[in-house]
Amino acid sequence: MSIAPACPLPIQQHETVQMAHGAGGRFSQALMQRIFMPHLSNAFLDQLDDQAKFDIPAGRAAFTTDTYVVSPVFFPGGNIGELAVNGTVNDLAVGGARPLYLSAGFVLEEGLPLQELEIIVRSMAEAARKAGVMIVTGDTKVVGRGQCDKLFINTSGIGIVRRDVSVSCRNLRHGDSIILSGSVGDHGMAIMTTREGLSFQSGITSDSAPLNAMIEAVLEAVPAVHAMRDPTRGGVAATLNELAVSSSAGIEIHEGTVPVRDDVRGACELLGIDPLHVANEGKLVLSVAAEDASKVLEVMRAFDCGRDAAVIGSVVADHPGMVVMRTAFGSRRVIDLPLGEQLPRIC
Amino acid sequence: MSIAPACPLPIQQHETVQMAHGAGGRFSQALMQRIFMPHLSNAFLDQLDDQAKFDIPAGRAAFTTDTYVVSPVFFPGGNIGELAVNGTVNDLAVGGARPLYLSAGFVLEEGLPLQELEIIVRSMAEAARKAGVMIVTGDTKVVGRGQCDKLFINTSGIGIVRRDVSVSCRNLRHGDSIILSGSVGDHGMAIMTTREGLSFQSGITSDSAPLNAMIEAVLEAVPAVHAMRDPTRGGVAATLNELAVSSSAGIEIHEGTVPVRDDVRGACELLGIDPLHVANEGKLVLSVAAEDASKVLEVMRAFDCGRDAAVIGSVVADHPGMVVMRTAFGSRRVIDLPLGEQLPRIC
Repeated sequence: MSIAPACPLPIQQHETVQMAHGAGGRFSQALMQRIFMPHLSNAFLDQLDDQAKFDIPAGRAAFTTDTYVVSPVFFPGGNIGELAVNGTVNDLAVGGARPLYLSAGFVLEEGLPLQELEIIVRSMAEAARKAGVMIVTGDTKVVGRGQCDKLFINTSGIGIVRRDVSVSCRNLRHGDSIILSGSVGDHGMAIMTTREGLSFQSGITSDSAPLNAMIEAVLEAVPAVHAMRDPTRGGVAATLNELAVSSSAGIEIHEGTVPVRDDVRGACELLGIDPLHVANEGKLVLSVAAEDASKVLEVMRAFDCGRDAAVIGSVVADHPGMVVMRTAFGSRRVIDLPLGEQLPRIC
Repeated sequence: MSIAPACPLPIQQHETVQMAHGAGGRFSQALMQRIFMPHLSNAFLDQLDDQAKFDIPAGRAAFTTDTYVVSPVFFPGGNIGELAVNGTVNDLAVGGARPLYLSAGFVLEEGLPLQELEIIVRSMAEAARKAGVMIVTGDTKVVGRGQCDKLFINTSGIGIVRRDVSVSCRNLRHGDSIILSGSVGDHGMAIMTTREGLSFQSGITSDSAPLNAMIEAVLEAVPAVHAMRDPTRGGVAATLNELAVSSSAGIEIHEGTVPVRDDVRGACELLGIDPLHVANEGKLVLSVAAEDASKVLEVMRAFDCGRDAAVIGSVVADHPGMVVMRTAFGSRRVIDLPLGEQLPRIC
């Protein structure tokens, strides 16, 4: 359908999402013309068929999905739009895949200011360009006031897995070094301090970032990486526990080696939350043979998002399925999964 | 992660979705073990990595996404779960693709009864089996009471496009026959009469069904089909208008040839809605050279979902970009796009 006009009407401050925008008629077309297409237009999306079609090479594909319900939708360091793109790019990249194509499914609440929607869509377009992916197909639904909270965005993504790579959360091996790409808790604490009205004082910003370029460089240097995960919901603690359980391996981490920004640590203490349980949106946890660790660190540190990369622990023969922290005083404590309710709607 | 226990605890009537179910900790794991894995388990999903990986042949892939926000979530003839699977299967099939893999992203409202969620997940599993696709990756978020309406489901899907097929909404050709696979308005009116409290009297049920087997058979017999669409939001009227505009072609349909069930027609009259504007979830609109029409009809009528297939009109040289109905009295009226707000949250 020919839908991208030469010059769509600018969005006015008083304009909001109407139920009619979601009904598949003229209003839906107008929303496409005025907000989505100006920012997201590309050869695939412009077809406006019910599905995007593209050529793919034979091989191993990766496929992932995530719905973003973060509240508030604008937060220090980003918004729900770029978060939705980066999150799905990262879920593909940690599988050893090169992210290629994304879908975007919106649920909009009646009354959402169109100017806010436009900022979010523009952020998605910028994040996609930065990560080198294309948003090729989409969907928009509108629900009445009070039937969702502003907007939710689902992004699904397709990538092609590198032939020489076989990462999996079941691949941890005894003696592996556990590497973390940078400080923990930034994203979750940026959201929490905003909600608690503390963001101005704290200055904490989300770490939302695409990891695919750094991961590509790491795998180029060391294809034999054993496992990769981005520690989002549940934080580094949940990720390490998943790796330990999936691989039936023990993980020991060393207190003092996990980077935490001072302001994040302070906010965590104020709110009574362990930084290891707090979500990150631009961090990588990686398990690799000890002899490859320094090479991996060197590559990671060349990237902004890996500047503070560090070895935080190792895979041990003891306590399979458990994560244990060795404290500065030599004592040990179990790093457990969070039960769950501390940090709702963080992503 | 080993997550499917031998015998998960049965779901009790009083159990509901808690915020903790969405936080990536132990409660999230329990939800996976007790509700999702027993029904959806397969070799890909069981890996519980952040992405599914599978081998694909080289060629043309199709990729689509849709978020389902239908209200009520249970309706005569189906529920949001099977609708979400069938809808995405159909969006791939109408692109000439064989649907293969689906993702499922849930947004759950705190307080949703777990028994309802289980029924919906079970319906998704059955619908996937029926359509011959696998749900290979997923995501679950929980939002507080009043922050969404029960649950929303995003399904995205990947398929492989048949090599000999090139359907597109820009492919209509002068002289084509326009074929419709069956009666219009069933899904939309099943939802509307339920909302209005008329469902018992009306007996109208949704037509939600997977179209991929029928489409595969049609393309096997007549690979040269020009265009296919499933007339969902905005109904047959919106679909025909999209085809006419995209192809810069005129479409003329003949009153009396469009099948409408008596009860659907009655409900439409009662509510003041044109059945051509009402959503369908198991119907196909197809454009094909006139000489191939009878062959296509024969194939379609061998399927339950194509039993009432009929030629409803043709592509004409006049009025490019417009859809016109020729009435029984010989007069003509324009079939326009609905403006939009008649039927919110129909899918």
